[in-house]
Amino acid sequence: MVGGIVKIPVLEVFGPTFQGEGRAIGQKTMFVRTAGCDYRCSWCDSAFTWDGSEKPDMLTADEVIARLDALGMYDYVTISGGNPLLIAAMEDLVVKLKKRGVTLAVETQGSRYQDWLTQIDDVTLSPKPPSSGMKTNWEQLDAIVERLRPEQTTFKVAVFDEADLAYAKEVQQRYSPDVMYLSAGNPEPGADGDITDAQLRRLKQLWEDVARDPSWQSVRVLPQLHTLLYANERGV
Amino acid sequence: MVGGIVKIPVLEVFGPTFQGEGRAIGQKTMFVRTAGCDYRCSWCDSAFTWDGSEKPDMLTADEVIARLDALGMYDYVTISGGNPLLIAAMEDLVVKLKKRGVTLAVETQGSRYQDWLTQIDDVTLSPKPPSSGMKTNWEQLDAIVERLRPEQTTFKVAVFDEADLAYAKEVQQRYSPDVMYLSAGNPEPGADGDITDAQLRRLKQLWEDVARDPSWQSVRVLPQLHTLLYANERGV
Repeated sequence: MVGGIVKIPVLEVFGPTFQGEGRAIGQKTMFVRTAGCDYRCSWCDSAFTWDGSEKPDMLTADEVIARLDALGMYDYVTISGGNPLLIAAMEDLVVKLKKRGVTLAVETQGSRYQDWLTQIDDVTLSPKPPSSGMKTNWEQLDAIVERLRPEQTTFKVAVFDEADLAYAKEVQQRYSPDVMYLSAGNPEPGADGDITDAQLRRLKQLWEDVARDPSWQSVRVLPQLHTLLYANERGV
Repeated sequence: MVGGIVKIPVLEVFGPTFQGEGRAIGQKTMFVRTAGCDYRCSWCDSAFTWDGSEKPDMLTADEVIARLDALGMYDYVTISGGNPLLIAAMEDLVVKLKKRGVTLAVETQGSRYQDWLTQIDDVTLSPKPPSSGMKTNWEQLDAIVERLRPEQTTFKVAVFDEADLAYAKEVQQRYSPDVMYLSAGNPEPGADGDITDAQLRRLKQLWEDVARDPSWQSVRVLPQLHTLLYANERGV
């Protein structure tokens, strides 16, 4: 689109709040949530990004930054989706935030690549296990991993059952990350009210399964803290 | 003690389990808990390490390693206390575990130094805030920080109240770590039964206090996961 202004489909800009999972768990951060996904995970906790139920705002990088600035001070921004790697136009936002010294994190299943990904400080590749109903394109994931530096790359797998845990082991064996992150899955993303007890029971079960298995080393097993504190509320 | 065998006062060797807090939160690890502390924190969750209620085993490094090996496979060991930095004899254990390729973590308030500390991969300095009743020797902490590499050093403060949060800010401003870790304090280390709700309420309050304050940047706010899952049980 020569001379045109490229726009980013944005569903939510919110914060300051905290990263609830993975390598940067507990990190104070702003979130930018993009619309659109090439996956349809059975337990997706952000199905509104792809099921047509919500219409994104089409924003320039400067407009996204204006929304972030209106929320308060920040030095860390997490770009999530949907799959943000569908969006080539993200590059302008990435470049402008990096110029301001902001640390950037991106979460993606690792099914698509954009050149701006190499400029992200914390790339979480979260390939989807069998319970999602999706099928991993390993060659595509390999190609993305090869373009990233190990120190910017985190592997995280959401685990809902035994087959998912075996899949996570496959990911660990294929890529040998320093640390492999397992996230206790939340199978009730649409549930109302208190889901804390169920979450903690699942985390405890996963801790105990992984503790018992000597083949699991160099691994961190974590909950989704935001669902412990806010259940399935939006914008927190 | 020329020619003598130096021994380590050990209260617990347990695992495999998971690190419940701080930089390595969720990490599968073995724990070695030493006896003895130069502090008497009001809310200490391991007072049995210093109140005379339990007698440590005096073990050589090889004996500690034999106990670890009996528990199963491991590539990560967390040395906790008490204050492990009281124990010069730890050096032999550190050297032997590093030779086996084990990643080592140590937790200490930063009141004492030993030369073996520089060989630890993850040193968590957890200076104690006002609610502990202890007084920080800043010059001593400075001297320890200067001897460590930034990439091996984590700063973590347990926060129980507003004065503690102000103290944590002081630590952040003094040492400017890449990331400052705040841990929602557990004021009921002796309580029986379920303390999950109280823990989560405190974490939520701390998240919201820190989210609201624009002067808090580059910060991670975390719970003690082990108390969410196991309350105040020992050996987990």
